[in-house]
Amino acid sequence: MNFKTLTMQWTGNSLILVDQRKLPHVVNYVECKSYAEVARAIKDMVVRGAPAIGATAAFGYVLGAKEAATLKNQNFIDVMKNVYDVLASTRPTAVNLFWALNRMEKCVDLSKAVDEILEDLEKEAIKIAEEDIRINKTIGTHGQTLLKDGCAVLTHCNAGALATVDYGTALGVIRAAVESGKKIKVYVDETRPYLQGARLTAWELLEIGVETILITDNMAGWVMKQGKIDAVIVGADRIAANGDVANKIGTYSVAVLSNQHGIPFYVAAPTSTIDIKIKNGSEIPIEERSHDEVTHVHGVKVAPDGVAVYNPAFDVTEHQLITAIITEKGILRPPYKENIAKLFGG
Amino acid sequence: MNFKTLTMQWTGNSLILVDQRKLPHVVNYVECKSYAEVARAIKDMVVRGAPAIGATAAFGYVLGAKEAATLKNQNFIDVMKNVYDVLASTRPTAVNLFWALNRMEKCVDLSKAVDEILEDLEKEAIKIAEEDIRINKTIGTHGQTLLKDGCAVLTHCNAGALATVDYGTALGVIRAAVESGKKIKVYVDETRPYLQGARLTAWELLEIGVETILITDNMAGWVMKQGKIDAVIVGADRIAANGDVANKIGTYSVAVLSNQHGIPFYVAAPTSTIDIKIKNGSEIPIEERSHDEVTHVHGVKVAPDGVAVYNPAFDVTEHQLITAIITEKGILRPPYKENIAKLFGG
Repeated sequence: MNFKTLTMQWTGNSLILVDQRKLPHVVNYVECKSYAEVARAIKDMVVRGAPAIGATAAFGYVLGAKEAATLKNQNFIDVMKNVYDVLASTRPTAVNLFWALNRMEKCVDLSKAVDEILEDLEKEAIKIAEEDIRINKTIGTHGQTLLKDGCAVLTHCNAGALATVDYGTALGVIRAAVESGKKIKVYVDETRPYLQGARLTAWELLEIGVETILITDNMAGWVMKQGKIDAVIVGADRIAANGDVANKIGTYSVAVLSNQHGIPFYVAAPTSTIDIKIKNGSEIPIEERSHDEVTHVHGVKVAPDGVAVYNPAFDVTEHQLITAIITEKGILRPPYKENIAKLFGG
Repeated sequence: MNFKTLTMQWTGNSLILVDQRKLPHVVNYVECKSYAEVARAIKDMVVRGAPAIGATAAFGYVLGAKEAATLKNQNFIDVMKNVYDVLASTRPTAVNLFWALNRMEKCVDLSKAVDEILEDLEKEAIKIAEEDIRINKTIGTHGQTLLKDGCAVLTHCNAGALATVDYGTALGVIRAAVESGKKIKVYVDETRPYLQGARLTAWELLEIGVETILITDNMAGWVMKQGKIDAVIVGADRIAANGDVANKIGTYSVAVLSNQHGIPFYVAAPTSTIDIKIKNGSEIPIEERSHDEVTHVHGVKVAPDGVAVYNPAFDVTEHQLITAIITEKGILRPPYKENIAKLFGG
């Protein structure tokens, strides 16, 4: 079985990931032939973006199962528990990782022969990946109704094709608006420390011919103040049952600034990003990453020796600041707690 | 006559500037032997920071006068008008540049011999520089009363010794608090695109032994939300008669975020930064700088080819967001229009 997008390619025996640490100037690929290599690629941010991490982990689980099947002296289920744990421990914030792994785990039917289990798992991973693309296109269809022809959108980080299996969530909405014939201008926050905006979002938008204006993160408030922004759209790494949203660090500041300027603040995410087990944002674990990401830019040191650093990779935007959450099942509006519960049949 | 600080050294025949583009890893000096070289150094940001630019331009004016004195066929005053214009056209936003040049121009007494004029000008430039240090120390004395022992301060950009002749404005307040025995922790915004926070402020604070935590600009809101910040202090490039403040890009966002979290937002600046001719912030010219500052970090390209960029070097924070303006003449509080007018004898 085979599957291929810009973000990832499944060869049947390996997962090939475009190296997002090097884009856009160098297009390199990292081939993962084991679940441990997949885990390393997620941890090191070869691949990033909540939905992309989910699908990547699913393929990692398949590779783990293939390895487990060759270990004659070990119990298949015991090995797979370890595979699950190694993949699950890569990044703590994006819930899609756990969602995808749980879905893979549930797919293991021990009444079947190992070969059949492997085939089921491979099919399930490809299904997760293919579904993600369909879901993003549906998010786009719903979300683009919120964007007027000729409007200017601000986005933070990368919630594009590269953050997903393909098409994107926040950028999927922009893509769908453009595909429906609307002219959209996009202001892109560069998104320090990892520069996903400057490197990935700007590149994706230019590839599809969208007018793209790159700004540093600290310019967002000033461009809003000058009336240059009509709407903000971002992705999400985890959404609590009350609508609080964990997303790339800086999202919270952008949300406060949007509200201050009366600009709608939209979150675009698949329902797999909603974690109904979590009551509110304060329960979402926030990953802290290496200090080098802040003291260095592309390997160049910019800060003095010995300086302390705080480097949370995500922040939480409380639901009160969010105008709507665009999902594949429709556009959620306040009251989020009630409307999310309804969505999950609560 | 001679004068020397970390930021600048006057040798009598040249102005030696520490190259702030290279700090903190490389300590290089740029020697300016003509007013044109001084103008180039200001434009290229060898030296930056409103008060530092003012004093630098004053010494540039002295070099211009020395050159003018050697031109036998040209009218001294005509040449000096050109010197003024060249120095004044380097950077449009910081008013201290024009303030210092006007002060130098007024010092030219045509009833005197050229040698005497040159001596007067040199004395005046040194006076401006020496006054700046005294003023900053007085700002510190006033401002430190606003900081409690054990508090955490956030600052944006560099309003330190390097942004002035010495001691600093915003960092002068922190310096004075530390000198008075208070323990102060400082969160430093890295301040893209030029990274004055990461490179200069973090370095200055570590040099004086202050606990310094470096963050990217987009983390400011999140650290405030977590209750980590007790006060914000920044410098200023120009203050309008109504108290609106132009300062480094990103200051406006920080001010909105401070207000949203009930954190006092202080501006520290000498009264030479107040431009009473300007009614409000909308009249302050905002410099736009090269797109390369955003697409590149320390010479390393981070954005795709062909992306458009918006790069305003400053923004305007309206007076309603400012808790107090700390000057050498005391702490200004709202209503700013009335209190600024009083200060200027209005």
